[in-house]
Amino acid sequence: MYKLTQIDGGVCASSGFYADGISAGLKSNNAKDMAFIYSNELCDIASVFTTNKMVAAPIKHFLAKGEFKTNFILINSKNANAMTGDAGVEDIDEILSHLPSEVKNPLMSSTGVIGARLPKEKIIAGTKLFNLTSRDADAAARAIMTTDSFSKQIAFNVELEDGSSFKIGAMAKGAGMINPAMATMLCFITTDAKVNKSEMQTILDEVTVTTFNAASVDGDTSTNDTVMLLSNATSNSYDKDAFKEALHKIMLFLAQEMVRDGEGATKLVTYKVTGAKDDEEAQRVAKALSDSLLVKTALYGEDPNWGRIASTVGAAGVEANEESLTISFNELCVYEKGVIHFDAAMEEKASAVMKLDRFSISCDLGIASGSFTAYGCDLGYEYVKINADYRT
Amino acid sequence: MYKLTQIDGGVCASSGFYADGISAGLKSNNAKDMAFIYSNELCDIASVFTTNKMVAAPIKHFLAKGEFKTNFILINSKNANAMTGDAGVEDIDEILSHLPSEVKNPLMSSTGVIGARLPKEKIIAGTKLFNLTSRDADAAARAIMTTDSFSKQIAFNVELEDGSSFKIGAMAKGAGMINPAMATMLCFITTDAKVNKSEMQTILDEVTVTTFNAASVDGDTSTNDTVMLLSNATSNSYDKDAFKEALHKIMLFLAQEMVRDGEGATKLVTYKVTGAKDDEEAQRVAKALSDSLLVKTALYGEDPNWGRIASTVGAAGVEANEESLTISFNELCVYEKGVIHFDAAMEEKASAVMKLDRFSISCDLGIASGSFTAYGCDLGYEYVKINADYRT
Repeated sequence: MYKLTQIDGGVCASSGFYADGISAGLKSNNAKDMAFIYSNELCDIASVFTTNKMVAAPIKHFLAKGEFKTNFILINSKNANAMTGDAGVEDIDEILSHLPSEVKNPLMSSTGVIGARLPKEKIIAGTKLFNLTSRDADAAARAIMTTDSFSKQIAFNVELEDGSSFKIGAMAKGAGMINPAMATMLCFITTDAKVNKSEMQTILDEVTVTTFNAASVDGDTSTNDTVMLLSNATSNSYDKDAFKEALHKIMLFLAQEMVRDGEGATKLVTYKVTGAKDDEEAQRVAKALSDSLLVKTALYGEDPNWGRIASTVGAAGVEANEESLTISFNELCVYEKGVIHFDAAMEEKASAVMKLDRFSISCDLGIASGSFTAYGCDLGYEYVKINADYRT
Repeated sequence: MYKLTQIDGGVCASSGFYADGISAGLKSNNAKDMAFIYSNELCDIASVFTTNKMVAAPIKHFLAKGEFKTNFILINSKNANAMTGDAGVEDIDEILSHLPSEVKNPLMSSTGVIGARLPKEKIIAGTKLFNLTSRDADAAARAIMTTDSFSKQIAFNVELEDGSSFKIGAMAKGAGMINPAMATMLCFITTDAKVNKSEMQTILDEVTVTTFNAASVDGDTSTNDTVMLLSNATSNSYDKDAFKEALHKIMLFLAQEMVRDGEGATKLVTYKVTGAKDDEEAQRVAKALSDSLLVKTALYGEDPNWGRIASTVGAAGVEANEESLTISFNELCVYEKGVIHFDAAMEEKASAVMKLDRFSISCDLGIASGSFTAYGCDLGYEYVKINADYRT
C-alpha cells in the first residue's frame, strides 16, 4: 500500500527542482511572460506532443535532438513560434546559447500567436533575469498563462510502505484551443521518483488518454501542445502503481481545471458515455458531445435540451438508435430507451441541475459495453469576445 | 444548347404545382408554421436525408413506404417530431388521414425542437385551412422557417433548342445545425421536367455533394435534414445537362443563402482548398476550416489571423506541411510555402478583405491536385444568444 498526500509547491515540490517566472516585456503591463524549470541533476524526459501537422518550432527542436537528458526548460507565452520554418528553430538555438553554463541541453516551449517570429532580443534579455536558485512555482505558473484566468498547479507526496517517498509536481496552462487531441495546452511535470525512462513514457501515454485527451474547450487542436515530465531520481524511491495513480490525479485535476477555465466557460460538464459498441465509439460520442456548439450553447443557456444531446449522439458516426439510448442529467433520467421522462416536473428538476457549476450528462447507448468519460464546458459570449479580439 | 432564366414563383413556378403557408398556432404571434406543396399530377420523388442515426419520424415514415408516387407534402415548423419513436410515426399517419381525397400518398416533413410529440390536434385543424388551389409560394417558404431571418426560394425556366421548356422551383429553410452532412435544413424542389426517376435521384445525389453538403453553419448534423425533389412531368420537356445545371444553380444558391443566414452570421466565406492529396482530403480541410470555432470567431472579429487557418489545416488529419502550404485572403497571399508575407501593409489590406460581407480564403496544400470548395460563416454573439434560448 501507499499513501498520496496533496502538497503545495507545484513544480518545485519535487526535490532538486527550481522554477520562476519573470517579465520580459512580451505581455503588456509588465505581466510575467517567461518561466523556467531547472533541476540540479540531469533529468530523464517523457513527453506527449500535438498531433497537428503544422508542429511548432519548439517541438521540432526537441524532436531533432534524439535521446538526451536535460536540466532546463525555458517557456514563453504570447508567441507560439509556429509556422516560422527553419528560422524558428534557429531562433531557439540562438536564445538557448545565452543561458548560463549550469544549464545542460536546454529545451524551449512556447504558446501564443501563431505565425510570427519570436522577439529574440527581448527573450534573451529576459533570460538574464532568471535566478536558478529561485523556487517560485506560482510565478512560473502565472508566466505561462495566455487567456487563462487563473494559474494551474498541483503536487503530491507519495509515501510507500518501506517508508521511502517521492514527489510529483506540475503546472499547466490551457484556456482556448483545448481539444481531444491535446490543444494549446502546456503542462510541465517534475518528479524526484526513481522511475525508469521508458516506463515513465508508457505511463504518461496511458494517463494522457483519459485526462488531457478527454478534455475539450472548443475542438480546435493547436500547433504547440506539450506535456513534459522530467524525473531527476533524487528521491531514490519509486512504485509503479503509486506513481501512476498520483500522475493520473495530477493530470486529471489539471485537465479539469483547464476546461473549467476554458475561454468564457462557466460550467464544467462530465460526459459519461457507456453502452457503446466499444471504447473507441464511446470516446467518439463523448467528444462529439463536448465539442458540439449546439450542446455547448444549451449548457450556457442552462437549458436541459436533451434533444440536442440525442441528435449529437446520432450524428457521431457510431452505432446508436433511439430505442436503446438513455440520457440522464446527473441522476435524473430524462429519456430512457424510447420513453420520454420529460414532463414539467422533470424539466424543472433538470433545469436545476443545469444551473450547477459542475454536473454530468450520461448517455447509455445500450449497444454493448464500451465506455469513455470526457470533460467539456459551455460556450458563451465571453468565448466569442476573447477569440474575436485575440491577436489585438 | 439551352438557356436558363431565373424566374419568380418558387415551388409554384413549375407547372401543376400549388403551395401555401398558414398559421396553426404552433409558433406564437400567428406566424405561419404549416405549409403544403400539392401537384395535380402524381410525382416521382428523389430524396436525400440526414446521416444522423436518430432519424426523425417523418423520414422513417417516408422510408417505410417503399416505392411510390405522391402529390402532396405537409410541412410544419416548431416541432421536429424526432426521438418520438413509433408514436411519432403513428402521429403522422393520423394527421395525414385527415387530408382531402385529392391527396394521394401524402408525405410529412418537420423541423423544430427535438424530443416532443407533435401537437396533433393543432396540426389537423391547420390542414383544414389549406386551399389546394392556392399558389402562394412565398407564404409556404415563410411557414417552414425556424430561426431563419429571411425566406429562401428560387426558380429557373430552362429553354431547350427544340423550343420546349421546363421549370425547376425550390424553397428551403436553414439557419442553425447546418453542417457538412446536411443539418437541419429542409429543401423542397419541384419540377415539371419529364425526367426519369432514377436519373433524377443520381443527379440529386451528385449535386448535393458540392452544394448543401459543402455548407456549414455550426458543424452539427440534425435528425431531420431533407432534400426532396418532386417531378410531375407535365412539361414533356427534358435535357440532362440543362436539368443538372439548373438544379446545381438552385441548390448552390439555397446552400449559400442558408450559410449567409446562419444563426447570427454576418459573413459568407468561401473556403477554396486545392493541392490536397485527393478530393476527399481537400474536403476534410475545407470542412475543418468552415467548422473551426477559432476561425469563425476570428472572422467575426474581422481579424486576418492566418495562423489559425494554418493550425486548422494542420489539425484536419490530412497530409500537409508548412513548407508547401500557401494561404490567401481573396487574391492576397499572406503565407507562401514557408514565407510569411504579412507585414503591416499586408495586414492592413487583409483586414480590409475581412470587413467584406463575402470573401474567400484559399489554402493550397501543395501536395497533389485534390480540391474542394466549402461555404461557411462567422460566429458571433447572436449565435450564442439564439442557441442559448432556443427552446423558450
